[in-house]
Amino acid sequence: MRPDALIFDVFGTCVDWRNSVAAEVGALFPKIDAYAFADAWRAEYDPAMARIRDGGRGYVALDDLHRENLDRVAARFGITPTDPAHLARVWERLQPWRDVVPGLTALKAKAIIAPCSNGSIALMTHLARFAGLPWDCILGADLARDYKPKAEVYLACARALRLPPDQVMMVAAHNGDLAAARTAGLQTAFVPRLTEHGEGQTTDLVPDGDWTLVAGDFNQLAQAI
Amino acid sequence: MRPDALIFDVFGTCVDWRNSVAAEVGALFPKIDAYAFADAWRAEYDPAMARIRDGGRGYVALDDLHRENLDRVAARFGITPTDPAHLARVWERLQPWRDVVPGLTALKAKAIIAPCSNGSIALMTHLARFAGLPWDCILGADLARDYKPKAEVYLACARALRLPPDQVMMVAAHNGDLAAARTAGLQTAFVPRLTEHGEGQTTDLVPDGDWTLVAGDFNQLAQAI
Repeated sequence: MRPDALIFDVFGTCVDWRNSVAAEVGALFPKIDAYAFADAWRAEYDPAMARIRDGGRGYVALDDLHRENLDRVAARFGITPTDPAHLARVWERLQPWRDVVPGLTALKAKAIIAPCSNGSIALMTHLARFAGLPWDCILGADLARDYKPKAEVYLACARALRLPPDQVMMVAAHNGDLAAARTAGLQTAFVPRLTEHGEGQTTDLVPDGDWTLVAGDFNQLAQAI
Repeated sequence: MRPDALIFDVFGTCVDWRNSVAAEVGALFPKIDAYAFADAWRAEYDPAMARIRDGGRGYVALDDLHRENLDRVAARFGITPTDPAHLARVWERLQPWRDVVPGLTALKAKAIIAPCSNGSIALMTHLARFAGLPWDCILGADLARDYKPKAEVYLACARALRLPPDQVMMVAAHNGDLAAARTAGLQTAFVPRLTEHGEGQTTDLVPDGDWTLVAGDFNQLAQAI
């Protein structure tokens, strides 16, 4: 059954956060290992959301978590950004993988396309403008006021589109994201991003579940839909 | 101060609901006055929302109100649509005024653009795809789970964009919409639509408040921003 809507993980699946963050950090601070900094900043991401998912903290948008995490990682690396608010928004300035804009454009002719990211509506809106992502609308964590992989985030996206979950397909480069989406009743598509974490990546190299579709990139996904 | 985002009323301001609804109704039911039908259906709009604004009914998406109102108006006109669910979604198939797509495209180069409509995210998403409206994201009543002109709807849009209200401009062909937006702290722009209600229109022909901007159409608005 062709889905009426496809919703997408963004960081890693649509955009290359690691090279993009490292490029900006490296230009500002040539003496530190910018890739290590990007990795360390990203490593703070899940623990920060975990507190919110677990109810230990009310919903705080990812923009604010990125800002808080930046302070912590900058201190660890011994740097002091002159404009930390601007640097924290580097997550709005990430380059898309090469197939993403043409692939999304082809997919948009067949179904509704929207991000289902842990990024806020504001963050996803700015990123879409920067990277040229032709979304039909912006969905994701803000709608549920909670974070993936909580089922409510996927279900809130389907509900906003007034679609039953099984008419919505979650697209991600992360098996864990797809497992949660499938448990929530969505269709699933795995698109590997073999260098999201650099050349030595060891995770999410292959599909580890019986996903609805597996495609090499977004162009192939558009042909398969 | 140039706004960082412009948010738009849609029915009447961006799209010509009256001619669009009448064309589809007239094709299905050539014996009735299709314009009278469109006007009668639209006249049910505000009372249906008023119950929700007043707390007499929990939030119900406009898609469902359109469907309920269709049943009532169809009975009054003595017609029985064979596919009422499809006809109720004619509000997703409305033609934009001639200046809207080029004007929005020009505005999008200068600021974030989004609908702030009483239509749901689903309805606005389908309408944007049909009419080619190049929104950056879809905001509006669904975010606030309440209806304009309640202040919370405008404020929820600004909050979703992480902007103070005075960095957001509400654009509408309806003075009442702008008055409410201004009370909520937004900038305002009036763009008249002199035939929204047909040739004999008597309302909203001129700006009746001291709005931030008045423009003849969206192209002129893009030049003024």
